[in-house]
Amino acid sequence: MTKNTSKVEEKFGNFSEWFDKVLLEAQIADDRYPVKGFTVYTGWGFSIAKRIVQMLEEELEEEDHQPMQFPVVIPEDAFEKEAEHIAGFSGEVFWITHAGENKLERRLVLRPTSETAIYPLFKIWIRSHADLPLRMHQTCNVYRYETRATRPLYRGREFLWNEAHTAHADYEDSENQVRNAVEIYSSVYDRLGLSYILLKRPDFDKFAGAVYSLAFDTWNPDGKVNQIGTVHELGDNFAKAFEVTYEDEAGEQRIAYTTCYGMGMGRTLAATISHHGDDHGLVLPPVVAPKQVVIIPIPYRGSVEAVGEYAREIRGRLREEGIRVVLDDDDRLRPGEKFYRWEMFGVPVRIEVGPKEVEERSVTLFRRDTFERVKADYESLVDVVRSLFDEIFQNLKDRSRKYLESEIAEAENLEQLKACMDERKIVKVNWCGDPDCAFRMKDEVVGEVRGTLWERHEGPTGPCIVCGGAAKEVAYVSRTY
Amino acid sequence: MTKNTSKVEEKFGNFSEWFDKVLLEAQIADDRYPVKGFTVYTGWGFSIAKRIVQMLEEELEEEDHQPMQFPVVIPEDAFEKEAEHIAGFSGEVFWITHAGENKLERRLVLRPTSETAIYPLFKIWIRSHADLPLRMHQTCNVYRYETRATRPLYRGREFLWNEAHTAHADYEDSENQVRNAVEIYSSVYDRLGLSYILLKRPDFDKFAGAVYSLAFDTWNPDGKVNQIGTVHELGDNFAKAFEVTYEDEAGEQRIAYTTCYGMGMGRTLAATISHHGDDHGLVLPPVVAPKQVVIIPIPYRGSVEAVGEYAREIRGRLREEGIRVVLDDDDRLRPGEKFYRWEMFGVPVRIEVGPKEVEERSVTLFRRDTFERVKADYESLVDVVRSLFDEIFQNLKDRSRKYLESEIAEAENLEQLKACMDERKIVKVNWCGDPDCAFRMKDEVVGEVRGTLWERHEGPTGPCIVCGGAAKEVAYVSRTY
Repeated sequence: MTKNTSKVEEKFGNFSEWFDKVLLEAQIADDRYPVKGFTVYTGWGFSIAKRIVQMLEEELEEEDHQPMQFPVVIPEDAFEKEAEHIAGFSGEVFWITHAGENKLERRLVLRPTSETAIYPLFKIWIRSHADLPLRMHQTCNVYRYETRATRPLYRGREFLWNEAHTAHADYEDSENQVRNAVEIYSSVYDRLGLSYILLKRPDFDKFAGAVYSLAFDTWNPDGKVNQIGTVHELGDNFAKAFEVTYEDEAGEQRIAYTTCYGMGMGRTLAATISHHGDDHGLVLPPVVAPKQVVIIPIPYRGSVEAVGEYAREIRGRLREEGIRVVLDDDDRLRPGEKFYRWEMFGVPVRIEVGPKEVEERSVTLFRRDTFERVKADYESLVDVVRSLFDEIFQNLKDRSRKYLESEIAEAENLEQLKACMDERKIVKVNWCGDPDCAFRMKDEVVGEVRGTLWERHEGPTGPCIVCGGAAKEVAYVSRTY
Repeated sequence: MTKNTSKVEEKFGNFSEWFDKVLLEAQIADDRYPVKGFTVYTGWGFSIAKRIVQMLEEELEEEDHQPMQFPVVIPEDAFEKEAEHIAGFSGEVFWITHAGENKLERRLVLRPTSETAIYPLFKIWIRSHADLPLRMHQTCNVYRYETRATRPLYRGREFLWNEAHTAHADYEDSENQVRNAVEIYSSVYDRLGLSYILLKRPDFDKFAGAVYSLAFDTWNPDGKVNQIGTVHELGDNFAKAFEVTYEDEAGEQRIAYTTCYGMGMGRTLAATISHHGDDHGLVLPPVVAPKQVVIIPIPYRGSVEAVGEYAREIRGRLREEGIRVVLDDDDRLRPGEKFYRWEMFGVPVRIEVGPKEVEERSVTLFRRDTFERVKADYESLVDVVRSLFDEIFQNLKDRSRKYLESEIAEAENLEQLKACMDERKIVKVNWCGDPDCAFRMKDEVVGEVRGTLWERHEGPTGPCIVCGGAAKEVAYVSRTY
């Protein structure tokens, strides 16, 4: 790939350019694919994405979700079974109409989400109460013909996610599943050091066909919020439409209750990049860094061989411990160029090895997050690296949370809300719950009502900031992707 | 899922029914998806497939292949750039023509393979000799509108594979890459205990646009061969069509040379099932078994608690060692029903725990592959389990290889070839190399010329068995999927 060593843009001052540049230079994604809205994940980026996928899949499987893979095509008749669902999605799906020279008898939809692919099989699999609960998950791409502006990772016409679908004997058990899903997603975000707000979406903005929708909203350096995951209680809406029933212990036929949830891998990767990165490029949490340590030899005349040998010894020691390490001994580049390159890639720890380190049998370690250097002797190498990983992770996590806290503001009237929106804040307002008041916030101050805290009721402190009527809830308002 | 405990069919006597039954009962795949040729991978099967994918991906990345993900859609104009390629694939692709209510300006192909998606980006990425070699891989589904009969895992209109694409400065380096690919694929098949023949396909049956194609053909219990992987030398055919050039060290513009290779995950899983399975169901190599050990308590009156406690102790000990273990303590099923169930799932080792084992602090271990029982004391549990894994793997591998050897026959004339084909053999014949003679074998005795051994020339022992002319090669002929 061609090298580009010009200065990086400012993350907070000029997010859009910063992000585009990091995507290309850190080999995250390439937006030059010749179909609009479709992006290529390149090597470093897809390595990170795969690690996030693996973390999530392990947690899902630990919680008894079976890994499956459903086809990408959905027949038109199945797609149209749940009325609200089809109303919500039909305007934005891709249609396959021909194969070879033939026109297909039945058109096929490229899945925009998989409920209508999965329920016909749930109907076959679920016979008795002993078959419940049933939990499956799949990591796949979904397709939506977005008419809004697309941006790699944030909004594409193809996007990578993991979706889970579950069926239960009663509403209570499906509600427990919603809580379990929230725990799993929270755990993954926490392990990535991402801060977020968990909101119950307003009714007018829930998933098409759901009883209610929860969403994980996270901050973005440009002041918009980024929805990185959603959890939906579907009640018996889909089960009724697809006739998913079971025989209970008394021999009665009953309707099942279902849930679904999805984590956007592009958006979770985007959040990981945007929360932790800085003006030098990526800063990766060690858990998902494809390389956790880079060793850079800094030889002087006469020390090339000894430095090289010591660098390889360090690499061997770290590898033994299962630490993902790379030795950059490409002699066409100067150490400074290598520093630039590996800082851009966000490798958490850099080890610099020169003649002095050889002589002392020491190592000089550089922290990507704080730019601090520490020295250690060879014997304590592994311990020091591991504790640096912990410290880096903790620092990234704290920084992300503090930034989120600093982003949240409160507004008591539309004028204040407008001022906050101009400052790109996430704003708490008293709201009567009427969709019309929410739509007015959007029309007049470009603020979207994202919802209210889930299972943590916040009492309003005054009347609705739009209509002045009695407020029922404290709503979170922001710009959004 | 509903239980089904009827007798399994015979693998060698009645392969087709055996396979269909194993797919459903061992929860590998479900063919009842309402679009013809599209199959659902269910929990146990997709867990195995994921492990095979991971083995391959690790080996590819160890050999410097970057993981990437390209879009599923290819614009019509890019798809049609390489003349032979489009001629080979255009009859069997799915077309996306509409999105929402709109007709698309440019039709999009659902990728049947990704060369034409990838080369436009290779053209951008490759500028100088320093950018070469470039190696990428992706695990994805591809789409072909098969008109032949489909069968889950063997032939579908959607199939899961891993494909790699590489670019090189000269033909010699691309040839080295072909060898590297063969090594990687061989290693994965070897680790799965699969025997195969590596053949150079005849020119009339090579990949559309390739200089030559290699293929890994493996045996199947019904006497057809199953192609589980292919490796293609593309020379400069694709690079020319897509203008993939680079500046060499002397500053001259040169054309790149490329290769590609793909491993079918469905077919590799099918081979793993079909080689090792028996009339009781799956028999899994420990490396890909989602559960490697199942513990089944066999309590008698008064011993329920002690047996349960000891079973949990054994589970804990094995888990500590990273062995994938499940304790089946569901008290609604009798031990015999559990034996049946876990034999069907192919779990390599079963541990039976009764009052006697508790008293002796011993374990009784059952080998899924040979049905042998061995006893061991608790202290040696982990060592015994690990050595059983090795023995089971070695036994499966040997059985597969011996079966392949027993399947290979020789024929000296068309009549003998016909007799061999009726016995469902893989048959070595002297062949002049003329495609017409190959076509006659197919027309007259349903035998397809699969190719000749790669880089291991076998001298013909007589004239061409069809035309009687001078034979150039020893060709392998068989029925095929």
